[in-house]
Amino acid sequence: MAAQKLRVLSFGISVDGYSAGPNQSLNHPLGVGGTGLMEWFFSTRTFQRMHNPESRETVGLANVPEHLFGQENGGAGIDNDFAARGFENVGAWIIGRNMFGPVRGPWADEEWKGWWGGNPPYHCDVFVLTHHTRAPLTMEGGTTFHFVTDGIEAAWRRAKAAANGKDVRLGGGVATVRAYLQAGLVDELHLAQSPVLLGSGESLFSGLGLPSLGYRLVERVPSAKTTHLVLARS
Amino acid sequence: MAAQKLRVLSFGISVDGYSAGPNQSLNHPLGVGGTGLMEWFFSTRTFQRMHNPESRETVGLANVPEHLFGQENGGAGIDNDFAARGFENVGAWIIGRNMFGPVRGPWADEEWKGWWGGNPPYHCDVFVLTHHTRAPLTMEGGTTFHFVTDGIEAAWRRAKAAANGKDVRLGGGVATVRAYLQAGLVDELHLAQSPVLLGSGESLFSGLGLPSLGYRLVERVPSAKTTHLVLARS
Repeated sequence: MAAQKLRVLSFGISVDGYSAGPNQSLNHPLGVGGTGLMEWFFSTRTFQRMHNPESRETVGLANVPEHLFGQENGGAGIDNDFAARGFENVGAWIIGRNMFGPVRGPWADEEWKGWWGGNPPYHCDVFVLTHHTRAPLTMEGGTTFHFVTDGIEAAWRRAKAAANGKDVRLGGGVATVRAYLQAGLVDELHLAQSPVLLGSGESLFSGLGLPSLGYRLVERVPSAKTTHLVLARS
Repeated sequence: MAAQKLRVLSFGISVDGYSAGPNQSLNHPLGVGGTGLMEWFFSTRTFQRMHNPESRETVGLANVPEHLFGQENGGAGIDNDFAARGFENVGAWIIGRNMFGPVRGPWADEEWKGWWGGNPPYHCDVFVLTHHTRAPLTMEGGTTFHFVTDGIEAAWRRAKAAANGKDVRLGGGVATVRAYLQAGLVDELHLAQSPVLLGSGESLFSGLGLPSLGYRLVERVPSAKTTHLVLARS
């Protein structure tokens, strides 16, 4: 059996190296201009089959054009191949608290249940990094959010166990991906570098020194909308 | 007559936003690993016609494979179109001192005459930014290096006058391009973002906030070797 991997997949970055724009908020979960980083993904069959038109009511997707939801025959090709790869052999997820929601500090109430509405697109265990305890949250469709307060290595151990032999996908955001890269725990990093100039925001690369952490660029596939780049540890 | 423009052309950057690698030196003018940023350019007909095999003796090109010099029929296509555009309607150049040579401080002697041997590939007036005065240096083939000690705006005025109605090409390095961008003097910035991960070095984008300086991404053309990106002021 192949070793379980920790993989970052379909992670958008701008040509100037930002994975989220400035001024992240409830209405701009990827920051101002950040939605442009994922346009290649919204046009794929993988995305369009995954979300029905009601998904658009969820705040995380409110900026995506309505016609891109619930299509049986959305775009195939390079972008779709990479989007689909993002869900293959994934048995659990790890995400940072900002990716779960805009709430900061202790969980004042438990009303916030993620950006994705009642039936989130994970359908497996999702481990949310936070400093504040909260009981697990079981949603429709097989997704359970677990709130992990004892750090990134503990989250990786728990996710690996929950994934039952499959890989673990590390969702984001930028600070979370950087922390796992610095700890040398990420096995594969698929970036989609899109023609967007953000100017400021959260820089993925700044000060990380990925080559000195053992990462190499092993694949580059440009498409009409983005450039797919795969980094792996050598 | 169209207004004269200041243009950065065929400027290589890595996927992580560096335009020169770490540890620049006589043997690594683009820093360690930096030559990879220009591989797309070396394979073009434009480059191969411009340089005969003796060019390889010049330190600036010492790391380029010998078979890429002096070819009549080097690569055509997207990369060559952009490489050729880099020499069209160019009447003068501006370069930073690091692009002229590795010498620092006052000109101890005048032995250093650039990276490019006796017949540099400019064939026009080249304005070198420096803090230290030096008499103009006339080379074979029509290139004259002028040493400008009174700043980037003075160099732009002098280059514009010398270009005789044509545009001025801003060569580099990174610090020089950043200074002209911050001053809002660059009209067009053609970057070639190549599949190289440098990890550290001179970052082109860091802290510049190009959108707030008025720059927009106006063109993206991926090729097999690199992704061409054109930024312009709106």
